Amino acid sequence: MTEPSAPRITTETIPADLRARLVAWRRDFHRHAETAWTEFRTTAAIVTELKRLGWSTVMGPELHDAGARLGVPAVEVLSHARARAIEQGADPGLVEAMGEGFTGVLGILETGRPGPVVCFRFDIDANDLVELRDASHRPFAEGFASVNDGAMHGCGHDGHAAMGLGLATVLADLRDSLTGTVKIIFQPAEEGVRGAHSIVAAGWFDDVDVFVATHLKSDDDRGSILTGADGYLASTKFDVAFSGVGAHAGGDPEKGRNALLAAASASLALHAIPRHSEGASRVNVGVLSAGEGRNVVPRAAVIKVETRGETSAIDEYMVARAMDAVAGAARMYGVDHEVTVVGRADQATPSPQLQPFIGECFAGVEGVTEIGVSGGLGGSEDATAMMNRVIERGGLATYVQIGMDTSWGHHTERFDVDEDMLALGAAAETRIALGAAEFLAGLERR
Amino acid sequence: MTEPSAPRITTETIPADLRARLVAWRRDFHRHAETAWTEFRTTAAIVTELKRLGWSTVMGPELHDAGARLGVPAVEVLSHARARAIEQGADPGLVEAMGEGFTGVLGILETGRPGPVVCFRFDIDANDLVELRDASHRPFAEGFASVNDGAMHGCGHDGHAAMGLGLATVLADLRDSLTGTVKIIFQPAEEGVRGAHSIVAAGWFDDVDVFVATHLKSDDDRGSILTGADGYLASTKFDVAFSGVGAHAGGDPEKGRNALLAAASASLALHAIPRHSEGASRVNVGVLSAGEGRNVVPRAAVIKVETRGETSAIDEYMVARAMDAVAGAARMYGVDHEVTVVGRADQATPSPQLQPFIGECFAGVEGVTEIGVSGGLGGSEDATAMMNRVIERGGLATYVQIGMDTSWGHHTERFDVDEDMLALGAAAETRIALGAAEFLAGLERR
Amino acid sequence: MTEPSAPRITTETIPADLRARLVAWRRDFHRHAETAWTEFRTTAAIVTELKRLGWSTVMGPELHDAGARLGVPAVEVLSHARARAIEQGADPGLVEAMGEGFTGVLGILETGRPGPVVCFRFDIDANDLVELRDASHRPFAEGFASVNDGAMHGCGHDGHAAMGLGLATVLADLRDSLTGTVKIIFQPAEEGVRGAHSIVAAGWFDDVDVFVATHLKSDDDRGSILTGADGYLASTKFDVAFSGVGAHAGGDPEKGRNALLAAASASLALHAIPRHSEGASRVNVGVLSAGEGRNVVPRAAVIKVETRGETSAIDEYMVARAMDAVAGAARMYGVDHEVTVVGRADQATPSPQLQPFIGECFAGVEGVTEIGVSGGLGGSEDATAMMNRVIERGGLATYVQIGMDTSWGHHTERFDVDEDMLALGAAAETRIALGAAEFLAGLERR
Amino acid sequence: MTEPSAPRITTETIPADLRARLVAWRRDFHRHAETAWTEFRTTAAIVTELKRLGWSTVMGPELHDAGARLGVPAVEVLSHARARAIEQGADPGLVEAMGEGFTGVLGILETGRPGPVVCFRFDIDANDLVELRDASHRPFAEGFASVNDGAMHGCGHDGHAAMGLGLATVLADLRDSLTGTVKIIFQPAEEGVRGAHSIVAAGWFDDVDVFVATHLKSDDDRGSILTGADGYLASTKFDVAFSGVGAHAGGDPEKGRNALLAAASASLALHAIPRHSEGASRVNVGVLSAGEGRNVVPRAAVIKVETRGETSAIDEYMVARAMDAVAGAARMYGVDHEVTVVGRADQATPSPQLQPFIGECFAGVEGVTEIGVSGGLGGSEDATAMMNRVIERGGLATYVQIGMDTSWGHHTERFDVDEDMLALGAAAETRIALGAAEFLAGLERR
Repeated sequence: MTEPSAPRITTETIPADLRARLVAWRRDFHRHAETAWTEFRTTAAIVTELKRLGWSTVMGPELHDAGARLGVPAVEVLSHARARAIEQGADPGLVEAMGEGFTGVLGILETGRPGPVVCFRFDIDANDLVELRDASHRPFAEGFASVNDGAMHGCGHDGHAAMGLGLATVLADLRDSLTGTVKIIFQPAEEGVRGAHSIVAAGWFDDVDVFVATHLKSDDDRGSILTGADGYLASTKFDVAFSGVGAHAGGDPEKGRNALLAAASASLALHAIPRHSEGASRVNVGVLSAGEGRNVVPRAAVIKVETRGETSAIDEYMVARAMDAVAGAARMYGVDHEVTVVGRADQATPSPQLQPFIGECFAGVEGVTEIGVSGGLGGSEDATAMMNRVIERGGLATYVQIGMDTSWGHHTERFDVDEDMLALGAAAETRIALGAAEFLAGLERR
Repeated sequence: MTEPSAPRITTETIPADLRARLVAWRRDFHRHAETAWTEFRTTAAIVTELKRLGWSTVMGPELHDAGARLGVPAVEVLSHARARAIEQGADPGLVEAMGEGFTGVLGILETGRPGPVVCFRFDIDANDLVELRDASHRPFAEGFASVNDGAMHGCGHDGHAAMGLGLATVLADLRDSLTGTVKIIFQPAEEGVRGAHSIVAAGWFDDVDVFVATHLKSDDDRGSILTGADGYLASTKFDVAFSGVGAHAGGDPEKGRNALLAAASASLALHAIPRHSEGASRVNVGVLSAGEGRNVVPRAAVIKVETRGETSAIDEYMVARAMDAVAGAARMYGVDHEVTVVGRADQATPSPQLQPFIGECFAGVEGVTEIGVSGGLGGSEDATAMMNRVIERGGLATYVQIGMDTSWGHHTERFDVDEDMLALGAAAETRIALGAAEFLAGLERR
Repeated sequence: MTEPSAPRITTETIPADLRARLVAWRRDFHRHAETAWTEFRTTAAIVTELKRLGWSTVMGPELHDAGARLGVPAVEVLSHARARAIEQGADPGLVEAMGEGFTGVLGILETGRPGPVVCFRFDIDANDLVELRDASHRPFAEGFASVNDGAMHGCGHDGHAAMGLGLATVLADLRDSLTGTVKIIFQPAEEGVRGAHSIVAAGWFDDVDVFVATHLKSDDDRGSILTGADGYLASTKFDVAFSGVGAHAGGDPEKGRNALLAAASASLALHAIPRHSEGASRVNVGVLSAGEGRNVVPRAAVIKVETRGETSAIDEYMVARAMDAVAGAARMYGVDHEVTVVGRADQATPSPQLQPFIGECFAGVEGVTEIGVSGGLGGSEDATAMMNRVIERGGLATYVQIGMDTSWGHHTERFDVDEDMLALGAAAETRIALGAAEFLAGLERR
Repeated sequence: MTEPSAPRITTETIPADLRARLVAWRRDFHRHAETAWTEFRTTAAIVTELKRLGWSTVMGPELHDAGARLGVPAVEVLSHARARAIEQGADPGLVEAMGEGFTGVLGILETGRPGPVVCFRFDIDANDLVELRDASHRPFAEGFASVNDGAMHGCGHDGHAAMGLGLATVLADLRDSLTGTVKIIFQPAEEGVRGAHSIVAAGWFDDVDVFVATHLKSDDDRGSILTGADGYLASTKFDVAFSGVGAHAGGDPEKGRNALLAAASASLALHAIPRHSEGASRVNVGVLSAGEGRNVVPRAAVIKVETRGETSAIDEYMVARAMDAVAGAARMYGVDHEVTVVGRADQATPSPQLQPFIGECFAGVEGVTEIGVSGGLGGSEDATAMMNRVIERGGLATYVQIGMDTSWGHHTERFDVDEDMLALGAAAETRIALGAAEFLAGLERR
């Protein structure tokens, strides 16, 4: 007779002291917010904890295919961030091991028993935001607002990282009840959809049988779950640098080659890329910066662009047309141009067979109020790169959304996390790890 | 003892009957106005008259380097114009000899005596204008308004052609007083600066020692002469055809490649070509025509463009930047483009040594009120191609302007010619032909 | 005892001779194709037939609210079309009655018995197309290709008009079995979504209880029916005329006010109107025509524009932004502008309660192969104005699509109609007319 | 008996010690370069010296019409510059007296004897440049390169200020030989043509009879003088701030109002302002800065623009068209805009009657190699505001250029001054002050 595995663990089994640690971890990450590819202190803290719990870890250059990293900041930015991390208590040896921004860590728990590879994704980077310093904002009122200039956890990744550590703690505890292998990827640089590709390219998802990414969502019903959130758009982020020739605008206007006008024309043409009949598309030139002085023909200009598509094919269409637009604009004004892709997210379709199982795992957990399947917000996500790799290799993958009724939008200076959701997520995902083997066996029998 | 040659002939020697014929010729040409490259009837009439006077003539394909002709109309236009010319009395054999628009004629008078080659230029084409049909307009009131739709002599070339025939008549009469060779080129297609290049390229100016082009100028002092008019800008005229892909704008917008937007972007970039510090420049997109239906992504677009420059170098700069602008605009929208040069005028500097002689020749003529040297209107002229060729080969060249106090501007529906100026010009230029040998000999002695 | 009404009539009851007349009508309309607001001969033929069958008719200015007509052609176009209609056999008195393009006719059959008002819509205008003259195209091969230049039935409205006459014939025959009132509107000017508004504004739909518009659809499964086609986008069609100041581009460029550049800038800005997050949108500048001569600063420019939206609200958003774009572009270049709305289609949602009844009526008809509810093509339709009026006043309305497996797309030079579908439609819609009273009574009972 | 006044003073009378002080002043000003409206230390040093020499001074708010100042920096910039000036040795009381950027000083020497008011202009501000720190650059090699970040005397105003102090020293010495009143205006903020207007508006030039502005010119013949340099273009400098509405570019693109696209369109339209047939014109958008983040519809944008014209009328034409362009661009994209004029220079024509006298004064001075009248560089100058005011009120005014054969261009990081020219200028202008009364009397006698 088989004891059903999932019911054994519920949020009740997450003891009060772990709940307190979930909150403490989240607040520590929040206070020391680190933006994409500079998560030195955050990564070091997670590595230290994982090792303490007995997980093996993969980090630094081993974790990434170096050539596939996107949108890595300048070396001075990295170097400043490393110094700050150490100053804020990070283990210098671990920081050193992360070198030029090889942040993030993969925790691996091998049971030694046959069974599937189950993988969970939590992202850990902060946003380029200045946090509100006002008593009405709880992180400020309670003393854990970000101390790092221009960095703030405004999307809940502080909570994700804490939830991942909570899950690692429970699973370490339940190690004897598990089979196969559990992986937890603490992904860097999700903002700007930059961090997933190089980890996927390094092969760490090639053996995954069940993959679950998790995201908290504000302005929703508290405890409402989507087991297969799919509202994410494929997206490409790129910069274009136009290089022309400066000249005195009064004395020699004909000697200049005007990079500002090239960037202006490109911006108009980019926004005029035709809509696609097969689904939603987007384009935005978010930043244009050109010229040095009022009386000089502008020699240099930069635009920061993103495209999106309801499908990857639509996003590829947008990018192809965008490349024409920027190349043509450069040609028009006799200037050079260079395109640098700094982020990319594909569309991904959550595996439908996986949904009922995920739903059951959440259904048994305290605080869960409602379980839906698809839908969700219209941003972009690079966990899709992981999902697609898993699905291509024959595995199942999904993206879980956990609703919070906090009223401040993502990516705002007032964003905050409902900390009760951290235990909820850790508990439900523990059930996924425990029940995956049986669920997969059941699928095969059909 | 040497009799001074110039004084012998004055306007007094142009008898009343020739004066009447000047007016009759001009009115006949005016009534049967023919635009660029369709001057079949005008050319045939001139050829017939030149032959009658004993001039030899060069016409048809022999006159032109076929590959160097610019802006020749479509074959249907030519064919329609040929038929009309014959219907309006042109000699069918001569019209036939002009084939696909090889209009214009070079009259040559060889004296058999040693002496210089002196050449005069008169242009013969009409404008694309609808003539005013109103009693206040003399050509209409007196019954010689154009009977040809959309063609009107609005720039005085009817008068030029008549003046050239008057000059040919007097010179034939004075043949025994001449030495060397006299050439009179009745040039087609000056409007749009299209007709001079192919005649120059065929070599007809390679042996010219003294070259004089002549133009009537309205809204000036009556009888005021510029012996070296130089206010003409270098200019290039070109069409750009953009070819994209049509698509249903509601159903498949992404399948289109939008030629209209390419033409629109090109137009903006063309007008934004930087000013030149070394002199005046101009650019104009005079016509943009794109698209077929409101709900179809425009597949085709055409723009008609001209650039100008105070020097040929400035015009070349404008053209070079314009080529970038149109190529880039095509690239931006993923469409093809094709540029066709349909006209070109260089800048030319009248030979300074020639001015005093030209001044003396005009000074003795009845009706001349004032003699200046340089200045004049800011349009473009392709007689400059002839002037430059003559000067390159060691000859002297100039451009004479004859003022009229008519108040209607060139290229307007009300333009009219002061017919007294025709005898004035013919008389003065007779003196040039008669005196050129002695003038050149004097130059050499210095 | 009441015999159920719908089953009594099937396509079997449409006798062979009426089938032959359906084909003959359709081919006559096809041969004498008339575009929007010039359907003088088509209307006259329909009026004559309706009167013969005993229907009363509303036509001419009485049918329309004159001020609400959109996109009416110039008076010369109308006058030429009237003359042609008479030449092609139209009753001169009827043509006269239609005056300046008051085409179309409403047929009314009053039974005198209590009962609902049931209304059917058939559109009758042709497209601005040149029909293929090639043996592979049946209308040409069989001698009924359009004899009218630039007009061709490329959307099946010839078939619609014939189907409407077929329906009128059967209903006149079955008059004693009907209750209430039946209306058949033969709508002009559907192309460009111009013709419905003025008829709606005149109040002819205010009393309608059940409204059914019908459209043939090529490139589909033969005989497949959609009872509530809803893929139509809301749309607005408008022209913008920019008026600036001409000037000689070489001599006085600063005196011009460039309408071409205003139109070019407006075109770019129109295509750059942001996408809408709540659904599909479209914008197209289909035609841009500007300028007169290469060397003149363009004084005038016209653009022909359309916007679309998945909902009327999205189309209104597009129009609001478009008005900013064109007003701003005019201001930029110091020119005036004038916007003329020439067409408008709303979105409409077919009444869901009506679908099962429509489905039953079609289900019993020979040739029907499949019955679906929603979906359909992504163009625009102004029958939606009629639908919305009916629904606002408490009635039910829908849009039926009848599939043909012809392979040529709508609005192409090869479009052709599957003539067997004409009897199918007439038969099924007869059943609707016969069954509507009972159906509505059943709804009320619920 | 009257000794002719001018000949008495030559460069010989400028003793070696004053020559050394000219160099020392210039190098001190160079080392402590201060940009427009922050010339606190420079002004304080000049004020102190003028007072020491017995000149009365007008400074601070009294010198300016506060509302007419253009392009004054933000208060933090001014406050930082005041602190730095004091730190670098400026008299704190004087700095305080200059308040929010009321820099510059007018020195006045009243002789008490009847006679004309003669005024000299020297500008004192540095450029926004980073000085070359390389041994090949003399100021760096000899230790007087600028110590102030981003400020460098790259246009010779350090030399002008020194020359003005030299002139003040000699004139104080020759006080008894002078009649009337001498004024020396040490003008702030000439770069960006911002500083003259508010001083003119305060009335300080209303009583001036003879006005001379002076400028050193590199890359010329050493000691060559232009007595009436007139190659300066009228110019207007302005910023345009566009304010729209931000929105998430993926989630709510339709809610944004895009300031970046408005600025881009404005830039294209500004560069496309038509050329003017009456003379040279210029336009440049030197800087465009827009947007905050890649995925946000840009809420704000700023462009920095300048126009120029060969005459003030042409510049006014450019500005009028530019105002249309920016207002229209804002309207196109539904954003607000605000224009701030930050600089303005008129065209001015040096008084022709004054030229011979100025020529004579320079002719007698050691080091002067050649004297011309008109010509000079094509930048812009706001001394023209002073010239025009003087001429309007019946005085005479001119602009003197002193050539140096230094090979580095103005406004480059390598610019340097030929320090021998400082004594040359001071000597010649002393002769102007001494001879002006007699010269004016002579003019009146004619």
